[in-house]
Amino acid sequence: LTALVDWPAGARELVEGLEVARLATVEPDGQPHVVPICFVVIGDTLYSVVDAKPKRRPLALKRLSNLAANPRATVVADRYDADWTRLAWAMLGGRAALVGDDGEYARALGRLAAKYAQYRTTALARVTNPMIALRIERVRYWTYQTPTTR
Amino acid sequence: LTALVDWPAGARELVEGLEVARLATVEPDGQPHVVPICFVVIGDTLYSVVDAKPKRRPLALKRLSNLAANPRATVVADRYDADWTRLAWAMLGGRAALVGDDGEYARALGRLAAKYAQYRTTALARVTNPMIALRIERVRYWTYQTPTTR
Repeated sequence: LTALVDWPAGARELVEGLEVARLATVEPDGQPHVVPICFVVIGDTLYSVVDAKPKRRPLALKRLSNLAANPRATVVADRYDADWTRLAWAMLGGRAALVGDDGEYARALGRLAAKYAQYRTTALARVTNPMIALRIERVRYWTYQTPTTR
Repeated sequence: LTALVDWPAGARELVEGLEVARLATVEPDGQPHVVPICFVVIGDTLYSVVDAKPKRRPLALKRLSNLAANPRATVVADRYDADWTRLAWAMLGGRAALVGDDGEYARALGRLAAKYAQYRTTALARVTNPMIALRIERVRYWTYQTPTTR
């Protein structure tokens, strides 16, 4: 993996320290769709397993049918705190698709299992639900101290 | 205000109990844009002040230039917990625009000030930064117990 994306200082640490982020896709009529996700980042790719039913009809899931029509997807990973001087977010934009390669799938699932107990101890660890790979093209990073880029 | 939107049971309570949500818009090239926001909901409208610079050039802010070209916007408000049986999210889809009416602006700012100390005690309480109003058209709601709608 060659890292081609410019990650501003602090952005990767913020993202990797979070358990939940939000994935936005776009519906065919131009309406955004955004849901919370569990995830890992390996290099410049973010992975997230779709653990909802129905397993055998992945395109029945809105986020996946959206990606089939428009692969552009964006994830925001942020830290909220009642003390607003601690606010920070990173926005990861790129194109997403289902992981088709078995080796890549296994490697990402291993990382998910290392991060989330549910991928070790529940049915999620045994099934092969669809996994989204977001190939990150651009990282934007904002903290309270640098309020110029949002 | 007449409530025309169908809020599934539990959705409004979830949303109103949260201090941060995420707002997604769409860039002209079809790339989603998503940022964390502070917000209040009054009836079927969600309000969020844009507290970033530059104050006098609101269209310089990406989320606002996006809305000028495509008013469709979606907010997700979710609860994460290491115990996944407590997961829940509500997705609020609709169209967004800047609040132009002074009375509506004042009313929403009053609600924001009641919710967030920063809107009472800092410069945010005195300036009139742009305020986004998302007119909610559809609410989707998901909890771990009802995994059929995402």
